[in-house]
Amino acid sequence: MRIITVSREFGSGGREIGKRLADIMGMDYYDREILSAISEKTKLDEHYIENTLNDGLLFHFPLTFGRTFGYMPDETSTSSLLAQQHRIIREIAEKGRDFIIVGRSADVILKEFAPFNVFVYADQADKIRRCRERGEHPDATDKEIIRQLKRIDRSRSECHALVSGEKWGEKSGYHLCVNTSGTDIRSITPLVAEFARQYFVKNK
Amino acid sequence: MRIITVSREFGSGGREIGKRLADIMGMDYYDREILSAISEKTKLDEHYIENTLNDGLLFHFPLTFGRTFGYMPDETSTSSLLAQQHRIIREIAEKGRDFIIVGRSADVILKEFAPFNVFVYADQADKIRRCRERGEHPDATDKEIIRQLKRIDRSRSECHALVSGEKWGEKSGYHLCVNTSGTDIRSITPLVAEFARQYFVKNK
Repeated sequence: MRIITVSREFGSGGREIGKRLADIMGMDYYDREILSAISEKTKLDEHYIENTLNDGLLFHFPLTFGRTFGYMPDETSTSSLLAQQHRIIREIAEKGRDFIIVGRSADVILKEFAPFNVFVYADQADKIRRCRERGEHPDATDKEIIRQLKRIDRSRSECHALVSGEKWGEKSGYHLCVNTSGTDIRSITPLVAEFARQYFVKNK
Repeated sequence: MRIITVSREFGSGGREIGKRLADIMGMDYYDREILSAISEKTKLDEHYIENTLNDGLLFHFPLTFGRTFGYMPDETSTSSLLAQQHRIIREIAEKGRDFIIVGRSADVILKEFAPFNVFVYADQADKIRRCRERGEHPDATDKEIIRQLKRIDRSRSECHALVSGEKWGEKSGYHLCVNTSGTDIRSITPLVAEFARQYFVKNK
């Protein structure tokens, strides 16, 4: 079974690379599908799940645990959703089909399956531009977008550290790190696919 | 003019990638040629120059400057050799021919020429193996080799910080970071070349 994990900075175009890779390699693709699966199991709203996971741990972990009598982690907490996500990702792998998965610390969760791990990043100006193109917050200032970029990356980093004890985005954890600034994603994705193929030839 | 810079961890196979890239792309290649040029200008022995640059700054900068009366940086000092190297690298670029250069902080020194910057790294076990294969220190223990790897990388990092104020090996400074562990350098170098070509198409 061949697995490719795509980790990415928010706004770097990593998701697009992931989707294109799936087309090129003819592999299953998982990204938001994981959120739907968590939603199905927990009966929680998909957007709630997404926002909670995006907000990271800072706002959700009981920092005042020792003082707050009666705190109980429940099914809606970040930690519980992360655990659900972990189980679902492993269930996907256990199906035995080739697949590509974007984000969600899958590089670490699936380590024993020897995935090909890609990290996608970009210069800040390009990430801002890409966020604007998505048009989600047309009135946001650059400063607000930068704050949003950093918040989401910090959350990804925190979740990754929790799962792995390793640093998110530290290149030693990936086989290939691709800067999308100054390139065209459509042109470089076939090269990423070829890197992955070479890896799978050597690591059967 | 197209320039590719290859920065690399010691023992990662970066030099081999650099040489193969030069063949594939039909570009001039600079690595030890820089040492010879410094040697020619300063009349210093090439090995002395290499060792001094490899030892980094720690052992050569006058940490006791204030107390050591009469200290004068001379032509044999690391700082003076780094300055020579800087000039020579710029002279190469000013010839206007396409070229590939390995190491020597060329990614930063040549920034205004918009080079394609590659960083090559590998897992520690593979770097040790590669050093053994070179056969330079057949009796060295793994521990000694690791110490040597770290020393040279630290020196590269120090020199890079001095030239650029930026962190060596920090992926944001490179267009592509390639982990040679678990792959075959011969197979992946054409892909690195193709990444570079795509970059040059977009950044003429």
